[in-house]
Amino acid sequence: MRILITGGAGFLGARLAREILKRGQLNGQSVSELVIADLFHAPADLLADPRVKGHAGPMLEQAQLFKSGFDGVFHLASAVSGECELDFDLGLRSNVDSSRLLLDSIRASTERLGKAPRLVFASSVAVFGPDAANPMPALVADTTLPTPQTSYGTHKLMIEYMVADYTRKGYIDGRAARLMTVAVRPGKPNGAASSFFSGIIREPLAGTATTCPVDAHVSHPISSPGTTVHGLITVFEASREAFGGRMALNLPGLNVKVSDMLAALEKVAGPAVRARVTFQKDERIAAIVDNWAKGCTFERAHALGLRADASYEAIIEQYIEDCKTRPGYPAEALNGLK
Amino acid sequence: MRILITGGAGFLGARLAREILKRGQLNGQSVSELVIADLFHAPADLLADPRVKGHAGPMLEQAQLFKSGFDGVFHLASAVSGECELDFDLGLRSNVDSSRLLLDSIRASTERLGKAPRLVFASSVAVFGPDAANPMPALVADTTLPTPQTSYGTHKLMIEYMVADYTRKGYIDGRAARLMTVAVRPGKPNGAASSFFSGIIREPLAGTATTCPVDAHVSHPISSPGTTVHGLITVFEASREAFGGRMALNLPGLNVKVSDMLAALEKVAGPAVRARVTFQKDERIAAIVDNWAKGCTFERAHALGLRADASYEAIIEQYIEDCKTRPGYPAEALNGLK
Repeated sequence: MRILITGGAGFLGARLAREILKRGQLNGQSVSELVIADLFHAPADLLADPRVKGHAGPMLEQAQLFKSGFDGVFHLASAVSGECELDFDLGLRSNVDSSRLLLDSIRASTERLGKAPRLVFASSVAVFGPDAANPMPALVADTTLPTPQTSYGTHKLMIEYMVADYTRKGYIDGRAARLMTVAVRPGKPNGAASSFFSGIIREPLAGTATTCPVDAHVSHPISSPGTTVHGLITVFEASREAFGGRMALNLPGLNVKVSDMLAALEKVAGPAVRARVTFQKDERIAAIVDNWAKGCTFERAHALGLRADASYEAIIEQYIEDCKTRPGYPAEALNGLK
Repeated sequence: MRILITGGAGFLGARLAREILKRGQLNGQSVSELVIADLFHAPADLLADPRVKGHAGPMLEQAQLFKSGFDGVFHLASAVSGECELDFDLGLRSNVDSSRLLLDSIRASTERLGKAPRLVFASSVAVFGPDAANPMPALVADTTLPTPQTSYGTHKLMIEYMVADYTRKGYIDGRAARLMTVAVRPGKPNGAASSFFSGIIREPLAGTATTCPVDAHVSHPISSPGTTVHGLITVFEASREAFGGRMALNLPGLNVKVSDMLAALEKVAGPAVRARVTFQKDERIAAIVDNWAKGCTFERAHALGLRADASYEAIIEQYIEDCKTRPGYPAEALNGLK
């Protein structure tokens, strides 16, 4: 099998790539080539694998690559929410135009080769939001009507519908899966408005004081990177019938309040670590987060055997374990535990 | 006010243009210029009005026009459902790319002039359809989750969400209104799978035998052209608060079975006219129609004071009156009544 991961040099894409390489197969078929297309170069450990081919550069310049005929595609590349709010054209280009180019390139290869690749599109819980004519329920379900309140959420939703239509036409065997907010991410804060969900765990564990920009009672569905990657692979491997229809499904999330996250941090790492987080409201971030889902249900993912992380302690423990064992986690990541 | 109608040379667009010219104003402001952009030339009666400027040609070549600064825009131009199913690229180009060019051109003019035009986007009841994971309710509401089963419906839905996001950002004051199937259309059958809804009334009134490609019990929401144009103008004139939120609303439709349509035809025009319609199932058309809404509710349009046509008899009587009085209706349209 020849597999493509767009955004495969990013945190989640690289983890997905490592997991696929470790398994060596998808759906019982051996993975002979794994192509990583990303704006940036893939991590060295991935490029060292003889099965991996890296392509660095904008997706909009990769039409030939995308037309080259893949058996499976994971489409993760995306500009994040904060970036899209600051630069409207960047968002359209990086999310809408790039996805369109990918889908139309694959369509060309399907028409040439007579075989549609399986494609998993990483959509987002950010498709959901409250509109005056569509209040948001306490928990968003697979079938909740999305009315996104960011350009990022709008783009993800538009692509969900494109994936469904290209699938209906037989150009791809597509499945859109809505990722919950993924935490704990390693490294530096990024442009996502959700960045603090990782920050309030990551920084105190590294020994750094940090602030939480939203109130302690704010609730949100979170998934660990391990659980998220497992979800993407499960959706890829599901039969068309098991996936059920062509619309997007919610990947599992643990519906958790900021106060519960910090209580879990104290339980896992002690009160001194927890004390490094103070609350300092950032009205811009708080306003964005206020429009986000407070929690999710995931009936269809559940039917595929997927489950949310067992607890927030388990999510933090996964991060601590990752810091000790995985590439891409800085040496000082656990300095606060010493 | 300077007003643009895309698709303004089409049946519905031209009727909208005539109505606006007759009123002479929108929201109390005088209409000084009405620009009709369409692939085809506008009807002569419209071009004869000194306020009208016609631009014939593909929307994708009209960026300069769209950037020129309008106070109001009605975006009706679209490839229809049947065309989009037959030619996937045509659909993407005519619906998605053209709408994107329009919105981005207006965005440029808004940034230049510091004032966002009001924009009404003609979406469609075709956004609704059944998916394995999202069965369609008996009546589709403003808040029903759309899972379109055609490329046309997919494109309309994608543009609804773009209009909402460009509105959120302040580039337009946009409102998407979902048109029900409009009947009775004059002239020849077109590429729309819904074409027969007009044909089974229009052809027998002209004295021509015709076939109905679906079963008599098929139900669908229908709106007369007059009611539809009134709906578009009302949505344009509504305050932002009265429109309510940024998501699309359903324009009113009369939920009616084919058997009721034919009973109304018999009531209005007599049994000899009704007898010109026979049933001959077309599996391709029937399969498409089977995925369409059986009826609609229109809570938000109702709150704006809009109502469906009073009866199917009234819809047929509007057509007969139009044949006698309006441009664009062929002389032989009522030959079957003589």
